[in-house]
Amino acid sequence: MRKQWCEARKNDPTPTQMYYAKQGIITPEMEYIAKIELLKPELIRDEVASGRLVIPANINHTNQIPMAIGRAVKCKINANIGSSALASDINEEIEKLEVCLKYGADTVMDLSTGGDLDAIRRAIIGHSTVPIGTVPIYQIIHDIKDLDNLTPEIMLECIEKQAKQGVAYFTIHAGFLLKFMPLVAKRKMGIVSRGGSLMASWMMKHHKENPFYEAFDEICDICAKYDVALSLGDSLRPGCQYDATDAAQMSELAVLGELTKRAWAKNVQVMVEGPGHVPFDQIEFNMKEEQRLCHDAPFYILGPLPTDIGAGYDHITSAIGGTMAAFHGASMLCYVTPKEHLGLPNAKDVRDGIIAHKIAAHAADIALKRPGAIEQDHAMSDARYSFDWNKQFELALDPDKARELHDESLPQDVFKEAEFCSMCGPKFCAYKISREIAKNECESYPKEEK
Amino acid sequence: MRKQWCEARKNDPTPTQMYYAKQGIITPEMEYIAKIELLKPELIRDEVASGRLVIPANINHTNQIPMAIGRAVKCKINANIGSSALASDINEEIEKLEVCLKYGADTVMDLSTGGDLDAIRRAIIGHSTVPIGTVPIYQIIHDIKDLDNLTPEIMLECIEKQAKQGVAYFTIHAGFLLKFMPLVAKRKMGIVSRGGSLMASWMMKHHKENPFYEAFDEICDICAKYDVALSLGDSLRPGCQYDATDAAQMSELAVLGELTKRAWAKNVQVMVEGPGHVPFDQIEFNMKEEQRLCHDAPFYILGPLPTDIGAGYDHITSAIGGTMAAFHGASMLCYVTPKEHLGLPNAKDVRDGIIAHKIAAHAADIALKRPGAIEQDHAMSDARYSFDWNKQFELALDPDKARELHDESLPQDVFKEAEFCSMCGPKFCAYKISREIAKNECESYPKEEK
Repeated sequence: MRKQWCEARKNDPTPTQMYYAKQGIITPEMEYIAKIELLKPELIRDEVASGRLVIPANINHTNQIPMAIGRAVKCKINANIGSSALASDINEEIEKLEVCLKYGADTVMDLSTGGDLDAIRRAIIGHSTVPIGTVPIYQIIHDIKDLDNLTPEIMLECIEKQAKQGVAYFTIHAGFLLKFMPLVAKRKMGIVSRGGSLMASWMMKHHKENPFYEAFDEICDICAKYDVALSLGDSLRPGCQYDATDAAQMSELAVLGELTKRAWAKNVQVMVEGPGHVPFDQIEFNMKEEQRLCHDAPFYILGPLPTDIGAGYDHITSAIGGTMAAFHGASMLCYVTPKEHLGLPNAKDVRDGIIAHKIAAHAADIALKRPGAIEQDHAMSDARYSFDWNKQFELALDPDKARELHDESLPQDVFKEAEFCSMCGPKFCAYKISREIAKNECESYPKEEK
Repeated sequence: MRKQWCEARKNDPTPTQMYYAKQGIITPEMEYIAKIELLKPELIRDEVASGRLVIPANINHTNQIPMAIGRAVKCKINANIGSSALASDINEEIEKLEVCLKYGADTVMDLSTGGDLDAIRRAIIGHSTVPIGTVPIYQIIHDIKDLDNLTPEIMLECIEKQAKQGVAYFTIHAGFLLKFMPLVAKRKMGIVSRGGSLMASWMMKHHKENPFYEAFDEICDICAKYDVALSLGDSLRPGCQYDATDAAQMSELAVLGELTKRAWAKNVQVMVEGPGHVPFDQIEFNMKEEQRLCHDAPFYILGPLPTDIGAGYDHITSAIGGTMAAFHGASMLCYVTPKEHLGLPNAKDVRDGIIAHKIAAHAADIALKRPGAIEQDHAMSDARYSFDWNKQFELALDPDKARELHDESLPQDVFKEAEFCSMCGPKFCAYKISREIAKNECESYPKEEK
């Protein structure tokens, strides 16, 4: 549906949602989002104009369905896919994308580092109805082989190529400045961001400022041309509880706030990326600080993980931190899979990671009383109370899994209408007893005076 | 080790930890707990005397290792096992117990409802080094077949039999009064507690007060004789977001507060059981209300689940609510498995449920800066930064799982010392780059002035 909308704005010099919003224009994307988020189009426009809401809307990704990221709307989740030097099959990536779409990822990042990166990206964007984000430094390094060959021209060329292909948002590690290096030395785990470590490597070798910081205005000009949003990367996110909320992290965050304003001045939409490993009691502070330092730009976070010892189950660790973070203002949760810290996720891991974070985001939406958030929960409760098992499966965030686990003990069709499950059996089913009481009560209780 | 401690107090009329604490006595159990919790024995004694800390310590469960439940100590988790009418094999229950012990359940509840309940319980207690809790009404119903046959004598006889066997704590649904029935009628899901629904059924049929409430003093007398703690059941816990924190739930909680004082007057230790399905923003209030209404008795909660649509993944939903609850004062989390709402958990589900809640409880311990909580996380971070994979597996809450997932992509021994994993590969490993920078930095950076 976006094809003609994008066509119409092809000759506009700054075809970004933020530009239109600032002009007081409600784009078709904003109208669509207002409808699905149960909000007024004017509110959506105002939020986009102020920078509090991002609508990823590259004019060249015309099969993308409009969605928005920000505190005014429901919390979103991102899933990562991508080839590596060892596994770089286009079909495999498309399969992973299908898993992401099936289980409800709101955006997908293509973090490919191996194979024909342009071809893989083209295929992913072509197949995707959700926005696709990238980390351009991965392709830059892949193309130039050695970090030493990095020049501003190569950097901008790669960024423009990806923008033209239809990438929705770029993670750019522009806030990590040379002067922060001594702060890193005080850490237990140094730099755990891949992009950040590459920037550090370059800065230390050349003793010059971060090249993405230096070229920030030119990067914004490219983003403005295609409406690519910037996702300002947190190179110095803490990699463990010990390093959380330290000077390195907070110093970079302040710079991300400055860059946010510079991008907005060029009508480029901005998200800010956040931590990481953070103790549970520091999550609220981290969210509030981002809002303060980054002028309410949407916060897109990885985790946070409130413990470091959950290896094998870090999708759960991350979901715990995710709800707390979203409750206090994070707008998008990047998923973490059970393989985090251990290896490359497979399809099962991707599914587990997505659902864990769907639950985390949804729990925050309910708590924040976002329009339309609670209705599915109420419908589920009604289905439970009336023993409508098929309806229960349907309403679950992962219907296949719910049915599969029910099938494990009671696979026969007849049990999909049974007034009990294998947990308590018919004699001990509280719902059943409760329903019978309710029936009798209606007949007898009001007559009694207690 | 407890054998001789218990032997020595066999002739005491009230051999409860609370009784001794009130006398100013520090029991060997208190000393042991002080050691493992890194606290002073005097503090443990004071907490037990005040009722803020429960030390499950049935004098007849002599192979039980001392542990404590309360806000002064680390958050604990409980796992449920138990036979059903369909599956009632003693060996199977012992196997489930072994899984619980292996993965770190702090207490285990035997919720058996089928087979030779006494024999199963005897076997479980005999094999268990952790406290075993029960819900006596399950055996009572099992024995008398029909609820109509319930008499106070039968009830107390069964309770005393279990107490004598060495049960550590009893879930008793004594706070649910007849006058609360009309409040239940306003709910979407009625009563979702099995014990609660049985009480409701009995009360509605006979139009008489809850028999456990009526016999509460006699129950306390039995508990005092063997030092069985009471776990005051929340018959009216909400079964969905809609019913959370409603009049039914809060009315019962106030009664549990009264019963707490009555039990304490008889030197019986008390925990209070809590919800359930609760929106994330209501969790803090629920925890604080319990503390206020129940005079700081430890809160032992099931969940809370901050959404109703996580079926198949409700161990994650529960872990999200669990950390929030523990952070605001819950002292023990009853695990929820992926099978919750769908069927009876198997060994895999038990393991997943336990680890999810170990993570949840541990995250709260870190946030509350409980003594000894963070050290393992720091050790993990050191192991990560030095690429000591075997050490990382060892420090994970589930070492087998961590190794297993690492093996999925890099099974060979050589990779257990590799300076990268399959997630980013050697070229993109942030830790590795970060370490190299740190090395160079030491040599070069201080000379520069920036």
